[in-house]
Amino acid sequence: MANREEIVKAVVNALTIEIEASGRHVHLTKEAVEALFGPGHRLTEVRPLSQPGQFVSAERVDVVGPKGTFANVAVLGPERKENQVEVSRTDAVTLGLKPPVRQSGDLRDSCPVTLRANGRELKLANGVIIAQRHIHFTPADAAKYGVVDGQQVGLKCLTGRPAVLMDTVARVSDKFATYIHLDYDEANACGWVKGDRGRLV
Amino acid sequence: MANREEIVKAVVNALTIEIEASGRHVHLTKEAVEALFGPGHRLTEVRPLSQPGQFVSAERVDVVGPKGTFANVAVLGPERKENQVEVSRTDAVTLGLKPPVRQSGDLRDSCPVTLRANGRELKLANGVIIAQRHIHFTPADAAKYGVVDGQQVGLKCLTGRPAVLMDTVARVSDKFATYIHLDYDEANACGWVKGDRGRLV
Repeated sequence: MANREEIVKAVVNALTIEIEASGRHVHLTKEAVEALFGPGHRLTEVRPLSQPGQFVSAERVDVVGPKGTFANVAVLGPERKENQVEVSRTDAVTLGLKPPVRQSGDLRDSCPVTLRANGRELKLANGVIIAQRHIHFTPADAAKYGVVDGQQVGLKCLTGRPAVLMDTVARVSDKFATYIHLDYDEANACGWVKGDRGRLV
Repeated sequence: MANREEIVKAVVNALTIEIEASGRHVHLTKEAVEALFGPGHRLTEVRPLSQPGQFVSAERVDVVGPKGTFANVAVLGPERKENQVEVSRTDAVTLGLKPPVRQSGDLRDSCPVTLRANGRELKLANGVIIAQRHIHFTPADAAKYGVVDGQQVGLKCLTGRPAVLMDTVARVSDKFATYIHLDYDEANACGWVKGDRGRLV
Protein backbone atom coordinates (compact mmCIF):
# COMPACT_ATOMS: atom_id res chain seq x y z
CA MET A 1 0.00 0.00 0.00
CA ALA A 2 1.38 3.45 -0.91
CA ASN A 3 1.81 5.75 2.04
CA ARG A 4 0.02 9.04 2.28
CA GLU A 5 3.07 11.28 1.77
CA GLU A 6 4.02 9.45 -1.39
CA ILE A 7 0.49 9.84 -2.77
CA VAL A 8 0.37 13.57 -1.96
CA LYS A 9 3.75 14.08 -3.60
CA ALA A 10 2.66 12.15 -6.71
CA VAL A 11 -0.50 14.25 -7.02
CA VAL A 12 1.40 17.54 -6.58
CA ASN A 13 3.93 16.42 -9.16
CA ALA A 14 1.15 15.51 -11.58
CA LEU A 15 -0.31 19.03 -11.27
CA THR A 16 2.92 21.01 -11.35
CA ILE A 17 6.14 21.24 -13.37
CA GLU A 18 9.70 21.57 -12.11
CA ILE A 19 11.33 24.97 -12.54
CA GLU A 20 14.94 25.17 -13.71
CA ALA A 21 16.97 28.39 -13.77
CA SER A 22 19.23 29.00 -16.76
CA GLY A 23 22.41 30.98 -16.22
CA ARG A 24 24.02 32.91 -19.04
CA HIS A 25 25.24 30.55 -21.76
CA VAL A 26 26.32 30.28 -25.35
CA HIS A 27 25.33 28.05 -28.28
CA LEU A 28 27.89 27.74 -31.07
CA THR A 29 27.95 26.50 -34.65
CA LYS A 30 30.57 23.97 -35.71
CA GLU A 31 32.36 26.78 -37.52
CA ALA A 32 32.38 28.94 -34.38
CA VAL A 33 33.71 26.03 -32.28
CA GLU A 34 36.57 25.62 -34.73
CA ALA A 35 37.23 29.36 -34.86
CA LEU A 36 37.51 29.51 -31.06
CA PHE A 37 39.00 26.11 -30.18
CA GLY A 38 40.89 25.09 -33.31
CA PRO A 39 40.32 23.18 -36.56
CA GLY A 40 38.43 19.90 -36.15
CA HIS A 41 37.51 20.66 -32.52
CA ARG A 42 34.10 19.46 -31.28
CA LEU A 43 32.32 20.28 -27.99
CA THR A 44 33.04 17.80 -25.20
CA GLU A 45 30.15 16.75 -22.94
CA VAL A 46 30.75 17.09 -19.21
CA ARG A 47 27.18 17.02 -17.87
CA PRO A 48 23.81 16.26 -19.44
CA LEU A 49 21.00 18.82 -19.20
CA SER A 50 17.35 18.02 -18.56
CA GLN A 51 16.50 18.38 -22.26
CA PRO A 52 17.37 15.13 -24.06
CA GLY A 53 20.68 15.27 -25.93
CA GLN A 54 21.61 18.72 -24.61
CA PHE A 55 24.71 19.07 -22.45
CA VAL A 56 27.11 21.39 -20.67
CA SER A 57 30.42 21.22 -22.51
CA ALA A 58 33.96 21.45 -21.21
CA GLU A 59 34.47 24.48 -23.42
CA ARG A 60 34.11 27.98 -21.98
CA VAL A 61 34.23 31.38 -23.63
CA ASP A 62 34.57 34.96 -22.48
CA VAL A 63 31.61 37.10 -23.58
CA VAL A 64 32.86 40.63 -24.23
CA GLY A 65 30.42 43.52 -24.52
CA PRO A 66 31.04 47.25 -24.94
CA LYS A 67 30.88 47.90 -21.18
CA GLY A 68 31.78 44.62 -19.50
CA THR A 69 32.91 41.01 -19.86
CA PHE A 70 31.79 37.70 -18.42
CA ALA A 71 34.67 35.23 -18.22
CA ASN A 72 34.31 31.47 -18.61
CA VAL A 73 30.71 31.37 -19.76
CA ALA A 74 29.28 27.87 -20.31
CA VAL A 75 28.95 26.61 -23.87
CA LEU A 76 26.01 24.24 -24.25
CA GLY A 77 26.14 21.44 -26.78
CA PRO A 78 25.63 19.98 -29.21
CA GLU A 79 26.62 22.47 -31.90
CA ARG A 80 23.71 24.39 -33.47
CA LYS A 81 22.93 26.00 -36.81
CA GLU A 82 23.28 29.50 -35.36
CA ASN A 83 25.37 31.14 -32.71
CA GLN A 84 23.26 32.38 -29.80
CA VAL A 85 24.20 34.05 -26.51
CA GLU A 86 21.52 34.00 -23.81
CA VAL A 87 21.82 36.46 -20.95
CA SER A 88 19.57 37.93 -18.28
CA ARG A 89 18.70 41.60 -18.41
CA THR A 90 21.00 42.15 -15.43
CA ASP A 91 23.81 40.52 -17.44
CA ALA A 92 22.91 42.67 -20.45
CA VAL A 93 23.34 45.85 -18.39
CA THR A 94 26.78 44.62 -17.25
CA LEU A 95 27.77 43.91 -20.87
CA GLY A 96 26.39 47.25 -22.04
CA LEU A 97 23.85 45.70 -24.41
CA LYS A 98 20.09 46.04 -24.88
CA PRO A 99 19.08 42.70 -26.38
CA PRO A 100 15.46 41.88 -27.15
CA VAL A 101 13.44 39.27 -25.24
CA ARG A 102 13.15 36.41 -27.74
CA GLN A 103 12.42 32.73 -28.01
CA SER A 104 15.50 30.63 -28.57
CA GLY A 105 16.33 30.59 -32.28
CA ASP A 106 14.65 33.94 -33.01
CA LEU A 107 17.55 36.33 -33.52
CA ARG A 108 15.71 39.32 -35.00
CA ASP A 109 17.35 42.52 -33.72
CA SER A 110 19.65 40.51 -31.45
CA CYS A 111 22.87 42.22 -30.39
CA PRO A 112 26.42 41.83 -31.66
CA VAL A 113 29.05 40.59 -29.22
CA THR A 114 32.62 39.28 -29.12
CA LEU A 115 33.59 35.81 -27.88
CA ARG A 116 37.10 34.90 -26.78
CA ALA A 117 38.78 31.62 -25.85
CA ASN A 118 42.39 30.50 -25.77
CA GLY A 119 43.64 33.73 -27.26
CA ARG A 120 41.26 33.36 -30.20
CA GLU A 121 38.49 35.86 -30.88
CA LEU A 122 35.20 35.61 -32.76
CA LYS A 123 33.07 38.66 -33.46
CA LEU A 124 29.38 37.84 -33.83
CA ALA A 125 27.33 40.31 -35.89
CA ASN A 126 24.29 39.32 -33.83
CA GLY A 127 23.08 36.55 -31.52
CA VAL A 128 22.61 38.03 -28.03
CA ILE A 129 19.07 37.65 -26.68
CA ILE A 130 17.26 37.59 -23.35
CA ALA A 131 15.49 34.24 -23.51
CA GLN A 132 11.74 34.58 -23.08
CA ARG A 133 10.57 32.55 -20.10
CA HIS A 134 9.26 29.26 -21.43
CA ILE A 135 8.05 25.79 -20.68
CA HIS A 136 9.29 22.77 -22.61
CA PHE A 137 6.47 20.24 -23.04
CA THR A 138 6.40 16.74 -24.36
CA PRO A 139 3.41 16.37 -26.71
CA ALA A 140 1.71 14.18 -24.07
CA ASP A 141 2.14 16.78 -21.32
CA ALA A 142 1.04 19.59 -23.65
CA ALA A 143 -2.15 17.64 -24.35
CA LYS A 144 -2.65 17.04 -20.62
CA TYR A 145 -2.35 20.77 -19.87
CA GLY A 146 -4.30 21.78 -22.98
CA VAL A 147 -1.58 23.97 -24.45
CA VAL A 148 -0.19 24.18 -27.98
CA ASP A 149 3.24 25.11 -29.25
CA GLY A 150 3.79 28.87 -29.13
CA GLN A 151 0.91 29.56 -26.74
CA GLN A 152 1.56 32.11 -24.01
CA VAL A 153 0.46 31.04 -20.55
CA GLY A 154 0.50 32.41 -17.02
CA LEU A 155 2.94 30.59 -14.78
CA LYS A 156 2.51 30.59 -11.01
CA CYS A 157 5.88 30.01 -9.38
CA LEU A 158 5.37 28.09 -6.13
CA THR A 159 8.49 29.62 -4.67
CA GLY A 160 9.72 31.62 -1.69
CA ARG A 161 8.68 34.92 -3.27
CA PRO A 162 5.65 33.67 -5.20
CA ALA A 163 4.71 35.33 -8.48
CA VAL A 164 2.63 34.75 -11.58
CA LEU A 165 4.78 35.29 -14.65
CA MET A 166 2.63 36.18 -17.63
CA ASP A 167 3.85 35.77 -21.21
CA THR A 168 5.50 32.43 -20.52
CA VAL A 169 5.68 30.64 -23.86
CA ALA A 170 4.81 26.96 -24.25
CA ARG A 171 7.15 25.03 -26.54
CA VAL A 172 6.07 21.55 -27.55
CA SER A 173 8.28 18.89 -29.15
CA ASP A 174 8.84 15.17 -28.96
CA LYS A 175 12.50 16.10 -28.45
CA PHE A 176 11.69 17.84 -25.15
CA ALA A 177 11.30 16.83 -21.53
CA THR A 178 8.72 18.85 -19.55
CA TYR A 179 10.47 21.61 -17.58
CA ILE A 180 9.98 25.31 -16.88
CA HIS A 181 12.96 27.51 -17.78
CA LEU A 182 13.50 30.89 -16.14
CA ASP A 183 16.52 33.15 -16.28
CA TYR A 184 18.21 34.22 -13.05
CA ASP A 185 16.46 37.60 -12.89
CA GLU A 186 13.17 35.74 -12.84
CA ALA A 187 14.41 32.91 -10.60
CA ASN A 188 15.84 35.34 -8.04
CA ALA A 189 12.81 37.63 -8.17
CA CYS A 190 10.74 34.54 -7.27
CA GLY A 191 13.13 33.28 -4.59
CA TRP A 192 13.57 30.03 -6.55
CA VAL A 193 15.55 27.16 -5.08
CA LYS A 194 16.33 23.89 -6.84
CA GLY A 195 13.33 21.56 -6.78
CA ASP A 196 10.72 24.34 -6.74
CA ARG A 197 7.76 23.82 -9.04
CA GLY A 198 5.22 25.92 -10.92
CA ARG A 199 1.74 25.52 -12.26
CA LEU A 200 -0.19 26.97 -15.16
CA VAL A 201 -2.85 29.54 -14.26
CA MET B 1 -12.06 71.57 -21.94
CA ALA B 2 -9.64 68.74 -21.11
CA ASN B 3 -8.61 66.70 -24.10
CA ARG B 4 -9.26 63.00 -24.30
CA GLU B 5 -5.65 61.85 -23.91
CA GLU B 6 -5.22 63.92 -20.77
CA ILE B 7 -8.37 62.43 -19.26
CA VAL B 8 -7.33 58.85 -20.10
CA LYS B 9 -3.91 59.43 -18.58
CA ALA B 10 -5.43 60.94 -15.44
CA VAL B 11 -7.76 57.95 -15.02
CA VAL B 12 -4.93 55.43 -15.54
CA ASN B 13 -2.79 57.32 -13.05
CA ALA B 14 -5.62 57.30 -10.52
CA LEU B 15 -5.91 53.50 -10.80
CA THR B 16 -2.21 52.64 -10.86
CA ILE B 17 0.98 53.45 -8.97
CA GLU B 18 4.41 54.27 -10.36
CA ILE B 19 7.05 51.56 -10.00
CA GLU B 20 10.58 52.51 -8.97
CA ALA B 21 13.53 50.10 -9.00
CA SER B 22 15.98 50.27 -6.10
CA GLY B 23 19.58 49.40 -6.78
CA ARG B 24 21.84 48.07 -4.04
CA HIS B 25 22.34 50.72 -1.36
CA VAL B 26 23.42 51.34 2.20
CA HIS B 27 21.89 53.15 5.18
CA LEU B 28 24.32 54.27 7.89
CA THR B 29 24.11 55.48 11.47
CA LYS B 30 25.82 58.73 12.46
CA GLU B 31 28.47 56.62 14.17
CA ALA B 32 29.08 54.57 11.01
CA VAL B 33 29.33 57.74 8.88
CA GLU B 34 32.00 59.06 11.24
CA ALA B 35 33.82 55.72 11.31
CA LEU B 36 33.99 55.65 7.50
CA PHE B 37 34.28 59.33 6.61
CA GLY B 38 35.87 60.93 9.67
CA PRO B 39 34.84 62.57 12.94
CA GLY B 40 31.98 65.07 12.62
CA HIS B 41 31.21 64.05 9.02
CA ARG B 42 27.57 64.11 7.92
CA LEU B 43 26.02 62.74 4.71
CA THR B 44 25.82 65.31 1.90
CA GLU B 45 22.67 65.36 -0.24
CA VAL B 46 23.22 65.24 -4.00
CA ARG B 47 19.77 64.15 -5.19
CA PRO B 48 16.37 63.82 -3.50
CA LEU B 49 14.51 60.48 -3.67
CA SER B 50 10.78 60.09 -4.17
CA GLN B 51 10.23 59.49 -0.45
CA PRO B 52 10.07 62.87 1.35
CA GLY B 53 13.34 63.79 3.11
CA GLN B 54 15.26 60.79 1.72
CA PHE B 55 18.23 61.46 -0.55
CA VAL B 56 21.18 60.00 -2.43
CA SER B 57 24.33 61.22 -0.71
CA ALA B 58 27.70 62.12 -2.15
CA GLU B 59 29.24 59.41 0.03
CA ARG B 60 29.95 55.98 -1.44
CA VAL B 61 31.21 52.79 0.20
CA ASP B 62 32.63 49.50 -1.00
CA VAL B 63 30.55 46.55 0.20
CA VAL B 64 32.86 43.60 0.78
CA GLY B 65 31.47 40.08 1.11
CA PRO B 66 33.27 36.74 1.51
CA LYS B 67 33.18 36.07 -2.26
CA GLY B 68 32.94 39.45 -3.94
CA THR B 69 32.86 43.22 -3.61
CA PHE B 70 30.72 46.00 -4.98
CA ALA B 71 32.64 49.26 -5.26
CA ASN B 72 31.11 52.72 -4.82
CA VAL B 73 27.72 51.66 -3.55
CA ALA B 74 25.28 54.52 -2.92
CA VAL B 75 24.69 55.64 0.66
CA LEU B 76 21.17 56.96 1.16
CA GLY B 77 20.48 59.65 3.70
CA PRO B 78 19.63 60.90 6.17
CA GLU B 79 21.46 58.87 8.80
CA ARG B 80 19.39 56.12 10.45
CA LYS B 81 19.25 54.37 13.81
CA GLU B 82 20.66 51.15 12.34
CA ASN B 83 23.07 50.25 9.58
CA GLN B 84 21.36 48.40 6.75
CA VAL B 85 22.66 47.10 3.41
CA GLU B 86 19.99 46.29 0.81
CA VAL B 87 20.96 44.04 -2.08
CA SER B 88 19.20 41.92 -4.68
CA ARG B 89 19.54 38.16 -4.52
CA THR B 90 21.78 38.35 -7.59
CA ASP B 91 24.00 40.80 -5.68
CA ALA B 92 23.95 38.48 -2.65
CA VAL B 93 25.30 35.59 -4.75
CA THR B 94 28.11 37.84 -6.01
CA LEU B 95 28.96 38.86 -2.43
CA GLY B 96 28.76 35.25 -1.23
CA LEU B 97 25.94 35.92 1.24
CA LYS B 98 22.50 34.42 1.85
CA PRO B 99 20.54 37.28 3.41
CA PRO B 100 16.88 36.91 4.32
CA VAL B 101 14.06 38.73 2.51
CA ARG B 102 12.97 41.36 5.03
CA GLN B 103 11.13 44.62 5.35
CA SER B 104 13.41 47.59 5.82
CA GLY B 105 14.31 47.90 9.49
CA ASP B 106 13.81 44.20 10.27
CA LEU B 107 17.34 42.88 10.63
CA ARG B 108 16.58 39.44 12.16
CA ASP B 109 19.10 36.92 10.80
CA SER B 110 20.57 39.55 8.48
CA CYS B 111 24.14 38.94 7.28
CA PRO B 112 27.43 40.45 8.42
CA VAL B 113 29.43 42.45 5.89
CA THR B 114 32.38 44.81 5.68
CA LEU B 115 32.17 48.41 4.44
CA ARG B 116 35.15 50.38 3.20
CA ALA B 117 35.67 54.01 2.25
CA ASN B 118 38.73 56.25 2.04
CA GLY B 119 41.01 53.58 3.48
CA ARG B 120 38.73 53.19 6.50
CA GLU B 121 36.92 49.94 7.25
CA LEU B 122 33.79 49.14 9.25
CA LYS B 123 32.77 45.57 9.99
CA LEU B 124 29.03 45.17 10.52
CA ALA B 125 27.95 42.19 12.63
CA ASN B 126 24.68 42.16 10.68
CA GLY B 127 22.56 44.39 8.44
CA VAL B 128 22.47 42.83 4.97
CA ILE B 129 18.94 42.07 3.74
CA ILE B 130 17.09 41.53 0.50
CA ALA B 131 14.34 44.14 0.75
CA GLN B 132 10.89 42.63 0.44
CA ARG B 133 9.02 44.18 -2.47
CA HIS B 134 6.80 46.88 -1.08
CA ILE B 135 4.52 49.79 -1.76
CA HIS B 136 4.79 53.05 0.14
CA PHE B 137 1.35 54.55 0.69
CA THR B 138 0.22 57.87 2.04
CA PRO B 139 -2.65 57.29 4.50
CA ALA B 140 -5.06 58.82 1.94
CA ASP B 141 -3.93 56.45 -0.84
CA ALA B 142 -3.99 53.45 1.51
CA ALA B 143 -7.61 54.29 2.34
CA LYS B 144 -8.40 54.68 -1.37
CA TYR B 145 -6.97 51.24 -2.15
CA GLY B 146 -8.37 49.68 1.02
CA VAL B 147 -5.05 48.45 2.39
CA VAL B 148 -3.55 48.73 5.85
CA ASP B 149 0.06 48.94 6.99
CA GLY B 150 1.76 45.56 6.81
CA GLN B 151 -0.84 43.96 4.54
CA GLN B 152 0.49 41.74 1.76
CA VAL B 153 -1.02 42.40 -1.64
CA GLY B 154 -0.69 41.08 -5.18
CA LEU B 155 0.97 43.58 -7.50
CA LYS B 156 0.42 43.41 -11.24
CA CYS B 157 3.36 45.01 -13.00
CA LEU B 158 2.16 46.67 -16.21
CA THR B 159 5.54 46.20 -17.80
CA GLY B 160 7.21 44.68 -20.83
CA ARG B 161 7.32 41.22 -19.24
CA PRO B 162 4.14 41.46 -17.19
CA ALA B 163 3.90 39.60 -13.89
CA VAL B 164 1.87 39.51 -10.71
CA LEU B 165 4.19 39.71 -7.72
CA MET B 166 2.55 38.19 -4.67
CA ASP B 167 3.70 38.99 -1.14
CA THR B 168 4.18 42.68 -1.87
CA VAL B 169 3.92 44.45 1.46
CA ALA B 170 1.95 47.67 1.92
CA ARG B 171 3.64 50.25 4.13
CA VAL B 172 1.54 53.22 5.21
CA SER B 173 2.86 56.42 6.74
CA ASP B 174 2.19 60.13 6.57
CA LYS B 175 5.93 60.42 5.92
CA PHE B 176 5.62 58.49 2.63
CA ALA B 177 4.79 59.30 -0.98
CA THR B 178 2.90 56.57 -2.86
CA TYR B 179 5.36 54.49 -4.91
CA ILE B 180 6.05 50.81 -5.62
CA HIS B 181 9.60 49.71 -4.84
CA LEU B 182 11.13 46.65 -6.53
CA ASP B 183 14.71 45.46 -6.51
CA TYR B 184 16.52 44.97 -9.81
CA ASP B 185 15.93 41.21 -9.94
CA GLU B 186 12.22 41.94 -9.85
CA ALA B 187 12.41 44.99 -12.11
CA ASN B 188 14.44 43.12 -14.75
CA ALA B 189 12.30 39.99 -14.51
CA CYS B 190 9.32 42.25 -15.31
CA GLY B 191 11.09 44.19 -18.06
CA TRP B 192 10.56 47.41 -16.11
CA VAL B 193 11.46 50.76 -17.62
CA LYS B 194 11.23 54.14 -15.89
CA GLY B 195 7.65 55.39 -15.82
CA ASP B 196 6.05 51.92 -15.78
CA ARG B 197 3.17 51.50 -13.38
CA GLY B 198 1.51 48.71 -11.43
CA ARG B 199 -1.87 48.00 -9.95
CA LEU B 200 -3.13 46.02 -6.97
CA VAL B 201 -4.88 42.75 -7.75
